[in-house]
Amino acid sequence: MTWILGVRITSLQHALPSASSAQASQLFPSLIDESRTPCSGNGIRYQGDLTCFCHACWSGPDCSVQEDIKTCMVNAESGSPFLFEDYWVAHPEAEVRIKPSYQEGYGWYQPQLERAIRAIHAQVGNAVTDDRHIVIGMGSQQVLTAAFFAVSNASRSPEVDPTKICAETPYYNSYPRTAAWFSSSLFEWSNTTDLEANAASPVIQVMTSPNNPDGSMRNKTVPGAFGIYDHAYYWPHFTPISAAVEYGDEDIAVFTLSKLTGHAGSRIGWGIVKDPKLAEMMQTYIVGDSGYVQENQLRATHLLHHALADQGGLLAYAREHMEHRWKVLHEVVSKSSRLSLQALGQAQLDKWTGTVRSPSPAYAWLHCNESKDQDCHAAMMAGGIIGRPGSAFGADSSFNRLELLMQPAVFETLAAKLELFVNG
Amino acid sequence: MTWILGVRITSLQHALPSASSAQASQLFPSLIDESRTPCSGNGIRYQGDLTCFCHACWSGPDCSVQEDIKTCMVNAESGSPFLFEDYWVAHPEAEVRIKPSYQEGYGWYQPQLERAIRAIHAQVGNAVTDDRHIVIGMGSQQVLTAAFFAVSNASRSPEVDPTKICAETPYYNSYPRTAAWFSSSLFEWSNTTDLEANAASPVIQVMTSPNNPDGSMRNKTVPGAFGIYDHAYYWPHFTPISAAVEYGDEDIAVFTLSKLTGHAGSRIGWGIVKDPKLAEMMQTYIVGDSGYVQENQLRATHLLHHALADQGGLLAYAREHMEHRWKVLHEVVSKSSRLSLQALGQAQLDKWTGTVRSPSPAYAWLHCNESKDQDCHAAMMAGGIIGRPGSAFGADSSFNRLELLMQPAVFETLAAKLELFVNG
Repeated sequence: MTWILGVRITSLQHALPSASSAQASQLFPSLIDESRTPCSGNGIRYQGDLTCFCHACWSGPDCSVQEDIKTCMVNAESGSPFLFEDYWVAHPEAEVRIKPSYQEGYGWYQPQLERAIRAIHAQVGNAVTDDRHIVIGMGSQQVLTAAFFAVSNASRSPEVDPTKICAETPYYNSYPRTAAWFSSSLFEWSNTTDLEANAASPVIQVMTSPNNPDGSMRNKTVPGAFGIYDHAYYWPHFTPISAAVEYGDEDIAVFTLSKLTGHAGSRIGWGIVKDPKLAEMMQTYIVGDSGYVQENQLRATHLLHHALADQGGLLAYAREHMEHRWKVLHEVVSKSSRLSLQALGQAQLDKWTGTVRSPSPAYAWLHCNESKDQDCHAAMMAGGIIGRPGSAFGADSSFNRLELLMQPAVFETLAAKLELFVNG
Repeated sequence: MTWILGVRITSLQHALPSASSAQASQLFPSLIDESRTPCSGNGIRYQGDLTCFCHACWSGPDCSVQEDIKTCMVNAESGSPFLFEDYWVAHPEAEVRIKPSYQEGYGWYQPQLERAIRAIHAQVGNAVTDDRHIVIGMGSQQVLTAAFFAVSNASRSPEVDPTKICAETPYYNSYPRTAAWFSSSLFEWSNTTDLEANAASPVIQVMTSPNNPDGSMRNKTVPGAFGIYDHAYYWPHFTPISAAVEYGDEDIAVFTLSKLTGHAGSRIGWGIVKDPKLAEMMQTYIVGDSGYVQENQLRATHLLHHALADQGGLLAYAREHMEHRWKVLHEVVSKSSRLSLQALGQAQLDKWTGTVRSPSPAYAWLHCNESKDQDCHAAMMAGGIIGRPGSAFGADSSFNRLELLMQPAVFETLAAKLELFVNG
């Protein structure tokens, strides 16, 4: 990290695990992932692509040109979980090979993926899947949409109002968009949670827990509402696992591969659904909307089998990095009063490790404290840090969300730029 | 085929090409696809699956039990294009390998897939893609939905009626379902094409050409309508290619990998769109609905590169099989007056081969001619042949659609059962 001019944060890194430490690498020692080789180690070139995708503040066709840390831009907006990339570069043995004869014809969801999903929840202890259905979709986004349609249709009769969908602020900015996306007469977004649900006026309350953007744990507040718990971040790298979530017929849990292994581009999400009728309606929706892609399911199964065999090595890797990032963030932000970080939840017993741990959420929910920074997003953008504005989450413009899921090297660049900002 | 008791159709098979004749197999001679091995050659076991998927009229854990041809069932309903399966079993060199580090993070549509799509249209000569956008989606189904949303939104203003979506009968039964799927206030299905479109009452006319179920070529009949041409079957194995389709701003063409290489389970479809605004709206819809899966795009690119390098070997293989199937069908159906086949279009110059050819469509659109068979679907079902009823296509119940895209061995079983039926 000596290339980050003038910023000494390397001392915090000694505890970081090597991405290649897990045992599974012994199985296929001859495979080597050279995706970073044409990009000088400062980027990656994917199979079939012609160009390198460079880390922030590196450029050139082979990512060998280091930009000025004072003027270069760091993207902390996307939510793309590149955090796991180094780990997988070090584990080429989890490669999947797909024969051309594989899955001709229309396919279904894959039972082996369902089994792997149940197994990873059992190993981590974050969700009960016994006596519950797993509904697999194209990312948690499609699973959420399927739930909106299924719950709304289930309560359909002529005199019923469109189902209201709501979430407490600050909420993930994709929810209102998804609710409006299809101009459906079945449901609509509600800007308030000051509602009471009943048979004539059904309500869906979406609770992201831990929450995006602020990492807080959420519970249902609307009486009588159907609850959708978006548990994308309920994994040990983001929060202590205090208990396995376990819902009845009036709630469902939604998870995603994206924040577990990093493969957001595979679009694999799933719901854990107790009510069999609802699970069937959600599946019917998914088949009618897009059908089931076979290749991403096969690869997801492969990656989960690797994670299972690795006995938590992937999650331990991610957790150590997230803890390191929060230590650095607190240290950097405390250097001035220009920014504050959200208060994190209490440290508590993490059942996965059996130790007491603090949350290390996926996003920093920053508040700009000075009057010159009333538009916090714009102020940080001027400092070369691209976040997502508070207004996108139904919150004030004095907030700005920074995503913390970049590659380790990119996080160090972000930290360096943050330090310039708080001292600016 | 000697195992098909009492039915001699083997003499028609001498002209069928071997699936392994294409040149590309020389490149990686060491790869062997053993997916059929555990299933006695009468079925396939996919990677990660525990059980064999047996061909019709074979059963048992290893597909070694031959059922009685008189009582066993043949599924000719699904439309799953298993026609290509033998070809790909013989071409294991088209295997794709995906590293675990591939495409962490959210992805986009892949430019290399777009290039391969343009190249295959150029090689076959069935569509002009120059000066046009390629919009890639999860199967042609999602591309169609994206077009419904984009065209409806493009004509949005307060006083405009919901866009009417229509198709001439008989039409593919997925269209009305897709139009109603989202209970959208933007568009609705119209049971008639007796419409006239104008700014206040927009109309989308869907033309499947060649048509599903009857193979006829279709043209726009509603004045002022926006045209969506579903060209899933506009490939040389189904119809002579008389000219490359070439549409302007008021029409789009939709194609699918499914009927080109058989990989329906990969969910890769695309639109060819002249109007840049419409193309952008369709892409925005697809991103918001499901996002882009990366694995299926990578594999589709790989398969198309193989098909391109193979200089038409895949299409020649499929065409010879389809021509064989129609010869057999005509021969079998002519043995009694119980059934009639649709009239096929005129033979004409096929620009792909430079020869005069007859259509060999993907479906037999059968008519039951006897009063005892008024419900043609039920009558054939009683004979062990599962089709899709005429009523599903907006047509009379005296029609029944048989899909002709099964594996070669399964088609011979279907032919044997059809012969029993027409003689019954």
